[in-house]
Amino acid sequence: MTEQLPEPLSDLINALCKLPGVGKRTARRMAYHLLQYDRHGAQQISQAIAHAINDLRHCKMCNSFTQDEICSTCANPQRNSSQLCVVETAADLNMIEASHGYDGLYYVLMGRLTPLAGVGPKEIGFEQLLERVTEHPVEEVIIATNFTAEGETTAHYLGEILKGKQIKVSRIARGIPSGGELEYVDAGTIAWALNERRSNH
Amino acid sequence: MTEQLPEPLSDLINALCKLPGVGKRTARRMAYHLLQYDRHGAQQISQAIAHAINDLRHCKMCNSFTQDEICSTCANPQRNSSQLCVVETAADLNMIEASHGYDGLYYVLMGRLTPLAGVGPKEIGFEQLLERVTEHPVEEVIIATNFTAEGETTAHYLGEILKGKQIKVSRIARGIPSGGELEYVDAGTIAWALNERRSNH
Repeated sequence: MTEQLPEPLSDLINALCKLPGVGKRTARRMAYHLLQYDRHGAQQISQAIAHAINDLRHCKMCNSFTQDEICSTCANPQRNSSQLCVVETAADLNMIEASHGYDGLYYVLMGRLTPLAGVGPKEIGFEQLLERVTEHPVEEVIIATNFTAEGETTAHYLGEILKGKQIKVSRIARGIPSGGELEYVDAGTIAWALNERRSNH
Repeated sequence: MTEQLPEPLSDLINALCKLPGVGKRTARRMAYHLLQYDRHGAQQISQAIAHAINDLRHCKMCNSFTQDEICSTCANPQRNSSQLCVVETAADLNMIEASHGYDGLYYVLMGRLTPLAGVGPKEIGFEQLLERVTEHPVEEVIIATNFTAEGETTAHYLGEILKGKQIKVSRIARGIPSGGELEYVDAGTIAWALNERRSNH
């Protein structure tokens, strides 16, 4: 906008654009806000980021973020270690945890197959996942990737590589959302919900 | 959401909530994005913030952000030093610069009078502004605070304290926005635009 912004300020604005969903305008607003009203908060952000990228690594078991070798979920003896739920991201893992509907273990792919963006099976943690189920056998792998084109591709691929491993492979159900009204649900979802109907005992 | 988030991760999420317009959910998405996809970008943000809060200070003349004693705008001999435009924030200054409609100097209040939030004349740079116009006299002060209740209060107060200083004090015009259609402009704006109409030469 103006060429006279001092360099540390324009650097800060450009850096804040790295945040997802933050464009130039929002970044500028954030930068001015921090400098003008909340330098202490700014310092906290700077330090928290540095701390997080230095201290957080991937759990050896589930690939999620942790400070330790093994994360607290994988290390918890109360969890059902015969079930392994495969999710795309650590955020998805948290959503499932928040549902309180699952007490098994997890594996976080940290991504999805996106051939067009050059993300193939090697870039995703598939080999590590195979090692995981070989070293610590499970009875069931529940595939909980998203119901997007890429999530579905990933789910299909996972199903293929787990074939012949003596492991039950399942996929989370797709259908009408809880509280959803048919009138407001898209046709594709209704078609799936009909197709995957279950007998009403 | 879950109590099992590793501490550096929950610290990061809490810190990102300090950004304006960022709530817990967005902060979580940002944190995961940075950790999963863009650790380099994260480092850039961390360093840019540290750099900015360490290196940027307030210009002695206009109170805006600069690395030097005097910012490049105030130091520019090409600018018309007889006019001083008073704005609430450095962002407002940039908007005016981007309009290419002004070549005078600026004074940035870094806030507005907000008595309810404990922001009185002392918290705003009023004294520094008076010093500024005493040490470097100007012919006209153009008040360009926002047309909000607080911006108007600030403008009124500024007008009062500049009275009797042999300085022409003006306020930027309020009216229909450029390209605005009456049908979509609020009634208050239309009333003001009528009230402050100018003769059509």
